[in-house]
Amino acid sequence: MDRCTVLRRLIRSGRMVRVMGAHNGISAKLVERNGFDAVWASSFEISASWGLPDASILTMTEFLDTARAMNDVIDLPIIADCDSGFGDPTIVAHMVRKYESAGIAAVCIEDKPFPKRNSFAGAEHQKLESIPEFVEKIRAGCDARKKNMVFVARTEALIAGFGVEQALERAHAYADAGADVVLVHSKSRTPASVFDFARRWQARTPVIAIPTTYYQTTLDEFEAAGIHIVIYANQAMRAAVRAMNQAMMRIHAAGSAMAIEKEIASVEELFELQGMNEVRQVAR
Amino acid sequence: MDRCTVLRRLIRSGRMVRVMGAHNGISAKLVERNGFDAVWASSFEISASWGLPDASILTMTEFLDTARAMNDVIDLPIIADCDSGFGDPTIVAHMVRKYESAGIAAVCIEDKPFPKRNSFAGAEHQKLESIPEFVEKIRAGCDARKKNMVFVARTEALIAGFGVEQALERAHAYADAGADVVLVHSKSRTPASVFDFARRWQARTPVIAIPTTYYQTTLDEFEAAGIHIVIYANQAMRAAVRAMNQAMMRIHAAGSAMAIEKEIASVEELFELQGMNEVRQVAR
Amino acid sequence: MDRCTVLRRLIRSGRMVRVMGAHNGISAKLVERNGFDAVWASSFEISASWGLPDASILTMTEFLDTARAMNDVIDLPIIADCDSGFGDPTIVAHMVRKYESAGIAAVCIEDKPFPKRNSFAGAEHQKLESIPEFVEKIRAGCDARKKNMVFVARTEALIAGFGVEQALERAHAYADAGADVVLVHSKSRTPASVFDFARRWQARTPVIAIPTTYYQTTLDEFEAAGIHIVIYANQAMRAAVRAMNQAMMRIHAAGSAMAIEKEIASVEELFELQGMNEVRQVAR
Amino acid sequence: MDRCTVLRRLIRSGRMVRVMGAHNGISAKLVERNGFDAVWASSFEISASWGLPDASILTMTEFLDTARAMNDVIDLPIIADCDSGFGDPTIVAHMVRKYESAGIAAVCIEDKPFPKRNSFAGAEHQKLESIPEFVEKIRAGCDARKKNMVFVARTEALIAGFGVEQALERAHAYADAGADVVLVHSKSRTPASVFDFARRWQARTPVIAIPTTYYQTTLDEFEAAGIHIVIYANQAMRAAVRAMNQAMMRIHAAGSAMAIEKEIASVEELFELQGMNEVRQVAR
Repeated sequence: MDRCTVLRRLIRSGRMVRVMGAHNGISAKLVERNGFDAVWASSFEISASWGLPDASILTMTEFLDTARAMNDVIDLPIIADCDSGFGDPTIVAHMVRKYESAGIAAVCIEDKPFPKRNSFAGAEHQKLESIPEFVEKIRAGCDARKKNMVFVARTEALIAGFGVEQALERAHAYADAGADVVLVHSKSRTPASVFDFARRWQARTPVIAIPTTYYQTTLDEFEAAGIHIVIYANQAMRAAVRAMNQAMMRIHAAGSAMAIEKEIASVEELFELQGMNEVRQVAR
Repeated sequence: MDRCTVLRRLIRSGRMVRVMGAHNGISAKLVERNGFDAVWASSFEISASWGLPDASILTMTEFLDTARAMNDVIDLPIIADCDSGFGDPTIVAHMVRKYESAGIAAVCIEDKPFPKRNSFAGAEHQKLESIPEFVEKIRAGCDARKKNMVFVARTEALIAGFGVEQALERAHAYADAGADVVLVHSKSRTPASVFDFARRWQARTPVIAIPTTYYQTTLDEFEAAGIHIVIYANQAMRAAVRAMNQAMMRIHAAGSAMAIEKEIASVEELFELQGMNEVRQVAR
Repeated sequence: MDRCTVLRRLIRSGRMVRVMGAHNGISAKLVERNGFDAVWASSFEISASWGLPDASILTMTEFLDTARAMNDVIDLPIIADCDSGFGDPTIVAHMVRKYESAGIAAVCIEDKPFPKRNSFAGAEHQKLESIPEFVEKIRAGCDARKKNMVFVARTEALIAGFGVEQALERAHAYADAGADVVLVHSKSRTPASVFDFARRWQARTPVIAIPTTYYQTTLDEFEAAGIHIVIYANQAMRAAVRAMNQAMMRIHAAGSAMAIEKEIASVEELFELQGMNEVRQVAR
Repeated sequence: MDRCTVLRRLIRSGRMVRVMGAHNGISAKLVERNGFDAVWASSFEISASWGLPDASILTMTEFLDTARAMNDVIDLPIIADCDSGFGDPTIVAHMVRKYESAGIAAVCIEDKPFPKRNSFAGAEHQKLESIPEFVEKIRAGCDARKKNMVFVARTEALIAGFGVEQALERAHAYADAGADVVLVHSKSRTPASVFDFARRWQARTPVIAIPTTYYQTTLDEFEAAGIHIVIYANQAMRAAVRAMNQAMMRIHAAGSAMAIEKEIASVEELFELQGMNEVRQVAR
């Protein structure tokens, strides 16, 4: 069964779908091993991994190459975070064809103009695209599909300071235009607006939430609010950065790696993860 | 001052040169911020980051692209781990031209045949190339330089089960052929053989050690043994993997990211590292 | 119907299959428009297009990226020329997984060691891999398939100066190992040896010929000899180079493009080929 | 002497500078061999070579990779056609850093919004960016330089249907903002407007013309009009497409390559161009 179908069944199953962000092959493998249902190819994590701003600096090429590299070493479906679609409707159509051809299960685009800024950047960076403009992107993207890739439309209405009403108006327009799933993003410390959205949405399509700022919310609470897909969008990279930074600090301070040796993965654990033990002996 | 020259001065300064492995832009930036002198573009870390074996599976293209992506976001010099040179002398010459053109300060090749296996893989994977064959690679590489890129020759004699005598014979041949620096790798639990090598080498060229298995060895001990360049070749990736794995385990178990929120880098820390705060406001 | 299946049916149909070499998207599109049955993603053409020797200088990454770029803009199946498989059996298995994931219909590997040299380079460059070594590559490649990609084994026995007997012995071993199709290459001015091979092969598998040096041979003659797949492997690049060189010479000599204006494709022809006319108007 | 300096001297020398478009390594090598002064890394040619529209479909990544691949196999300076700068001023600054790091001698951006359309596409596709917006891109780009890369500003005022007055107003604003060279594009059948522009520009900076539609104009006429840099921007690709198409048509019609064998470059000519003859013999 292809991974578009796997993902479609998952999100229509009614059971909680837990998605974890990743930024390269090994983090994607860890997502798979830890029992999550899908991988979020996070543009924030991927930009950060390059050491570059999350501001449409990396191009679709790098995001796609990274998603493909992940897809080729795991079996889980990937939802690719495609920012604002990298340009206009013509570009969104091209994007869909390329991601489908790479075997990616889903793409997600958000209603901000290109170039976009990270949703947690200051309010001055948060502009919305008009509804008709974004609707045209969704239509172009959905029409370009040759397979059954899942199309996720994300509204930044709450991020940009508009209310639930605006988020709902946009989400309905996006579903009308063909979006299979709606993602409503928020940087509030509580899930209240997102929950309000979900209640009034009445499960017209599955809804995705990204609990970065309202991290205390439990799965039961999401479920009760009618949200069955949750993405932990950036914690993997944040964990990696903290750990690498501390390891380097301690190695530099101590003049040896002794102090951290027992706190980091062993070489054998890496070998196991990267498939080193299945490699044949060199013939010569 | 170009980074080849920076690195040449560093390794000829007589003071301890501390090099830390990295596998992408953000880990390279962390190396720089933590006060190290140079970055080791580790093929083990890079292969692991793709989730693929360290067995010449990734091509020179991915290793070079990764080294370039790191080089373009830091000011430190990079020593690029180029495995066995990706092929024969013709390929090594091509490799040198491409790495020089990307502004990489140094390349390092090791005396194992292509395709190579990680040095910590089983003994059955450790074959050495003949001295004349490897010498020809060094010559081809050194001759291909148009700038003053540092050429590091690495002997796997100790890894392959030969003694210090063999390592010395090889190192002398490699220095004769033009190598600027010699790296002598070992998987022993103690630095005894490496120290023995360094003593008998009598500083003919600078010597590099990689204390992965003999991690207790201190900088003073290296210095006393005449080794002034130390590479912590894989701890960054090992720290990242452990941290990401634990973060995911705990998120999955708890059904929320609350428990780890305070233990991982904040979104703002990532913004700061990736230069998000220097991004201009979008005009529209 | 996926393109692996399309190609399988074609080569089993008994009718002549005509394959044309290409090296980028536009040459692949021209192959399609001119009525050929499949595209040969020629490593000679692709290396030449980079201005680099056909000597395993470009990596699998560039060959795969080029094949994928072609595959994504045409509907015809592609047979990817994968040289000697880019390394050992572990690498061949990886190669197969990557080409399959890119949707390429077929891969072809040849029985020369890595790094390989172009078959028309001097005799001193033509070494054969041993039969058991190459058989192991074929097995590793065929086993790695998850879909029904066509696996072509190419023998360079005639190129390396051995006779038809040796070519047959090798081809039988390769078919035993799982190869779906056999390619027997020759640099002779006549097709005699290739025809002799085909007669004695008795259609055990389909046979491919590449009439570069014996270019006078007609399709009827191939068919009569039992060869139903013919690849024109390098004429597209050779035509392009001659034409570009003459255009530049004449522009430089005349100090204007006037003299060649009517002899080259119009801007509109390029627009039509590259799909410029389907691009939507920019909204703003 | 680095290639930025080479180009700076050339364009300040007062003698005619002849630039020829190319789209890959081999066409760039042909430009060099035919005596031109520089290579135009044409986004039209490069898009066409992928078989994709010239409409910001390919990303900066592919354009940069192609320019780098050309730069690494020739000694001539390259002027990279960077369309509208791939986004906003933040992206233009990033672009400049990446092209400089790749050793490219010059970048050229044009005053159309992203995503852009080819200048010869219909009038409905030709929108101009406002002067302040484009000026900010030029400033961001020029400020981002660490070396002395040449910055070319291209005005599409004539293409978009405005007159010479508008072109001049824009060009002055662009030169004020730091542009080293001005390119004034036109799709008229005569060079009258371009010549008018040059006369009134009074050599404030060097001026570039692209005689695609007014191909009859001679170098003497350009020189007399005060234009010392001429780019033949697309003839190489147009020659290649015509030649490849005819070669394929004839091979398909004849059922053999015999008819074209003498009209296309020989395998040996390709070997010579791609450096095949300098490749060493394989050791084994």
